[in-house]
Formats: sequence, structure tokens, C-alpha cells
Amino acid sequence: MENRTEISSLGEFRLIEHLTKNIELQNASSIVGVGDDAAVIDHFGKQTVITTDLLIEGVHFDLIYTPLKHLGYKSVIVNLSDLYAMNASPTQITMSVGISNRFSVEALDEFYEGVYAACEKYGVDLVGGDTASSQKGFIISVTAIGEVTPDKYVKRSGAKKGDLLCVSGDLGAAYLGLLFLEREKKIFLENPAIQPDLEGESYVVGRLLKPEAGKNIIEFFEKQSIRPTSMMDISDGLSSEILHICKESEVGCVLYEEKIPVAEETRKAAFKFEIDPTACALNGGEDYELLFTIDQSDYEKLVLNEEISVVGYVTDAAEGARIITKGNNTFPITAQGWDALKKK
Amino acid sequence: MENRTEISSLGEFRLIEHLTKNIELQNASSIVGVGDDAAVIDHFGKQTVITTDLLIEGVHFDLIYTPLKHLGYKSVIVNLSDLYAMNASPTQITMSVGISNRFSVEALDEFYEGVYAACEKYGVDLVGGDTASSQKGFIISVTAIGEVTPDKYVKRSGAKKGDLLCVSGDLGAAYLGLLFLEREKKIFLENPAIQPDLEGESYVVGRLLKPEAGKNIIEFFEKQSIRPTSMMDISDGLSSEILHICKESEVGCVLYEEKIPVAEETRKAAFKFEIDPTACALNGGEDYELLFTIDQSDYEKLVLNEEISVVGYVTDAAEGARIITKGNNTFPITAQGWDALKKK
Repeated sequence: MENRTEISSLGEFRLIEHLTKNIELQNASSIVGVGDDAAVIDHFGKQTVITTDLLIEGVHFDLIYTPLKHLGYKSVIVNLSDLYAMNASPTQITMSVGISNRFSVEALDEFYEGVYAACEKYGVDLVGGDTASSQKGFIISVTAIGEVTPDKYVKRSGAKKGDLLCVSGDLGAAYLGLLFLEREKKIFLENPAIQPDLEGESYVVGRLLKPEAGKNIIEFFEKQSIRPTSMMDISDGLSSEILHICKESEVGCVLYEEKIPVAEETRKAAFKFEIDPTACALNGGEDYELLFTIDQSDYEKLVLNEEISVVGYVTDAAEGARIITKGNNTFPITAQGWDALKKK
Repeated sequence: MENRTEISSLGEFRLIEHLTKNIELQNASSIVGVGDDAAVIDHFGKQTVITTDLLIEGVHFDLIYTPLKHLGYKSVIVNLSDLYAMNASPTQITMSVGISNRFSVEALDEFYEGVYAACEKYGVDLVGGDTASSQKGFIISVTAIGEVTPDKYVKRSGAKKGDLLCVSGDLGAAYLGLLFLEREKKIFLENPAIQPDLEGESYVVGRLLKPEAGKNIIEFFEKQSIRPTSMMDISDGLSSEILHICKESEVGCVLYEEKIPVAEETRKAAFKFEIDPTACALNGGEDYELLFTIDQSDYEKLVLNEEISVVGYVTDAAEGARIITKGNNTFPITAQGWDALKKK
């Protein structure tokens, strides 16, 4: 090969852009294609939403501290989260696994116990999949399918000036859970006699190992007849996701640091690690909360839900994406989020 | 863990049975779940069909002799084949890839060139996917979505006594293509100065590296108003697939060896390797032709299509699945097909 461009020189998002830039959709039923949380397919009045994720041992999860049952649960959740981020209700999943002979049937059963637990909780059917042997490591590929009533799906591109910028739940905990588990792993590998000390950290560890998806929020929108103008799930950190919304919607925004929801447990954990809790919320990943924008006229309805925080507002694109800190300084928001391809 | 059951002791099909035996579908829209070529989802009159495959380097393909463009093409085709096997028309795919830093962007471009070529030829839209880094090897996960008019989908379970047993195209070639490429790889690894000698084997090699899916056959059915009583694609070898149909339909069958379509090139290649061409058709894999049963009353329509061969007929379950050889001996059909998990 004459030219060689390192994939790491592009990073995940530019790689995807590069690989998909020439797509022209051929089927009238393909409403939304590559580039959002999920694709939307029209089926004569009802719309099908589809998303997929590939999870690889050593890259996306570490089996030293991830119980297989939790891993099964989480691998479903991360996909459902993408469907909720389209304002859709998940209905089916397919689950493919690649396994080396290091895994026993019992180990796989534990994994599927988590898969089925997530399916049951979220009312989703496992309708297909594939099993393959892998030469090394555990590989998980999930595709989730959902439905949405016509024209109710929410893309990343609909935010407009004056909209309120909102997030569900609280942020930054999963990243601190990861820091703790990585620290305990290091201690364990140096001296296997030392047992993990996770006391007091069950919240942040739980947020990493067993996240939940935004079902409650979507149901609240439905009940209150709220249709967000844009939405996505927060898997790579709030900064990165805000920049996606701004780019796709061609807008700017103001984010107030003091409004970013951070749980007390997360704050305490951050101080133990001597890092800024806000940095964890902005740049940590895997919280699987929802980031969305709504029209100001929906504000009254929104305050009914304690799980939702208004964290800022949408501006003209020319003003850029900015954060106003607790000390009242203004900085541009930059993406330092997790980029699966750049990290390795 | 107290018990350890080796996954290899079950094999792929029993493993899937084991993992999915307790599924109870929760959504009314989940018409067909795990256990056929694809799942069927109802969308108010139109039915969505979905299938997924996981392909792993070193297990499902060998990059020493597989051009990346062909690999991209084939990874789409194997999924479309599963949709055609449901009598459905593919409309969308998602494509996820896991790549190590050994791959350049140019290499990935070659792969996607094949992906897009298949999409264009079969009229399918790429609507989503995921890219991840892998620690080792190339990992491909494709999900394909199609549609079928209500009640036209064809499962594996509808064959009934007296039906004709049919296959499309010709069989056994891909397996011989694999034997050739494996032989040339061995020679090359022993002495890299020796160039591959594939002369005269372009047919069998092409059948392995660039298979096609059953679009023509499905369109022929549509035009002739034929609805097969059962159908599946031939990915693991004719024997294995016939046994699936018999098991799912609770029937037996008679297969005539002399009726099994084998191309002249395949026959010649088999003789070079001193193996029986019939054995290649029965037990070789990856031909991606269709195996189906039709009611006898459709026979007149069937003979219009040269691509279709009637290879036997369906009997009572009690008579078992049997093959009548050219020498007029009768043997039970046994599955010696490729079993991805048992092989490793």
C-alpha cells in the first residue's frame, strides 16, 4: 500500500465521517441514516429505530473487575440508551458474542443472566444473534430496535437559539467508579492478598458497572407532551456531547458549571482522587444520562421532574459553545471525552 | 466457579439452544424470535426481518488470502443471504468494525469499498454502525434489516410430507476454494518466493471470496407467486441445513446424490484434491445458496428456472433424513458441516 494514514490520526468521529461520507440512501424507508444515536426506518406509519454497539474486552471492559452478569446487563443498556436518545421505545435486541475457550458455559450463563435481566426490566425481546469463537478475549455486539410514533423521533440537529439545555440524572460518577476499580486492580495485581477496598464507593462503582437507560425520561416526555428539539445520550462526557449537538444543530450554547448535576457521592470520590468533580462530569464517560434541548415554553412542565436539570441555553452558532464557571469565568467548551480509537 | 462445562462440548447450535431456551417474547410485534435465519418484527401490516453475524479474523477469515474489499463485500452478503432465506427483501444494514492499529485508514477504505459495492448491488442502505479498537485482529459485526409483505416470510419449520426439496445454484465450490487457498498459504509460508498457483481455480476461489446472495431466487418466487413451505440458506453445508429443516419441520426426507448440483469446475477441483465432490457439497460450507421446500403443485413453475434444482422430497419424520447415492445405496444424512465453535 502506498499511503498509510494511521487510524489514530483521525479519531473515532472523523473516521466514521470519513468512512460514511459518500453514502446515498437508496430506500425510501431509510429516514435517518448514519450519524445520530440510531437510524430511523419508516414502516408505513410506524417508525423503526435501530442502533448497534461493539464491545471488546480490554478496550471497553476489564473482566478483572466487571462481573459477567453486570457486563451482560450493561451491554444491553448502552444500546437502549441510544434508542431513548432518539425518543424511541426499545422493543427488540439481537446479541452476538465472540468467546474464546477460556469461557465456560457457566460463565456465559452469568453474562446472559444480565442480558435477560435488562430485557425484562426494559420490556425488550431478544430476537436473534450469533455466537462465534474468538481467538482472544470476549467480544459483544448488540443491535437494538425500537419504535417511535411518526415524526416523534428526536435527532441531534434540531436545537435552536433560546432553547433550554438540559440533562437527566447526575454526571461524572461512572468515571470515578472506573478510577476506583483501576486503582484496586493495580493494588491487587501487585499483591493479590489485598482485598479490594470499595467501601463508601458503591454509588460510583454501581454507576459504572450497572448503568440504567433513560426510560423514565422518555415516558415523562410522552406524558407531558414534550418533544425535545434535540437529544443524545451522554456516553463520552458532557463536553463532547454538547459539541455534537452544537455542530449538528449549527448553534452555540452557554453551560453553567454550577448547574451541572453531580451527586454528593461523586463529589466526595472526586476529592479523594484530588480531581475536580466538574471535570469528571465534562470529560468522564459512560454515565448514560440524556442531554437534550427543549423549547422555553416547555419549562413549566420540566420543573415537575426532579431527575431533570436545566444546565444552560442555546445561542447563535457564532457565539460558540461556552461554559461559565462557578468563579464566573467564561471558557470555550472543548472535547476531552473518551475517544475509543485515540486512547489505544 | 464450581462447575465448568466446556463450550466446545456443546457446539454452536446446542449452545444457542441452551442460552435462549427460556426466552418469552414480550412485545406483540416480535413475530419470530431466535432460531431461524432472521427474526420477524411486525410493523402494522409490514413485517421487518432482522439478522446479525459476527465475523472474527483468524476464525471466519484469513487476511493472508482474503482481499479486504472482498471481505467487506462478503460480510454484507452473508447477512443478506439470511434475509433472502426468510423470503424477505433487504433494505438496511448496520456495520460495526473492531480494528487494531495494524490497520491503516486506506486498508479500512478498501474494506468499505466492498461493503458499499454490496450495498449498491443489492439496493441496501448502510444506516449505522460502530467503530472500536481491538487489541488483536479484525472484528466485523453486521446486522441486516429487510421487509416482507404480511405472512410471506418463510421459516424453517413449514416443510410437509410430499413437498419437493430444492436448492439454488451449485454447491461445494466454496469449500474447494478454501482448500486451494489454504494449500497455497502453506506453500507461501514455507517459501515466500513461490507465488500462488491458482490457475484454473478462479471459479471455486471466487465462490469462497465473493459469494452472492439469493436475490434472483426471491424475485423469481415473487413473480411466479411461489411461497416455499420452508427455506434456509446453505452456509454450513447441505447435510447440516437439511437436518435443520427436518428437525424444525418435524419431517424426514430423501435426497438424491445424483441430483445435487455441482459445477464442473468444482468437480475437477475435487478430483485434484482426491476428494468426493458430493462430500464437498454435503459438508463444505459457505456456498450461500438457498435450500427450500415447495408444494408439488408448484413444480411446473419451478422448472422455468435453471438456477433451481429439485434434489429430493419430504417424507414422514419416522423415515428420517436419508440420502440415496449414485450407487443406489441409502444412508442416513449426518451433519459433518462446519461448526464454528467445535472447530477451534
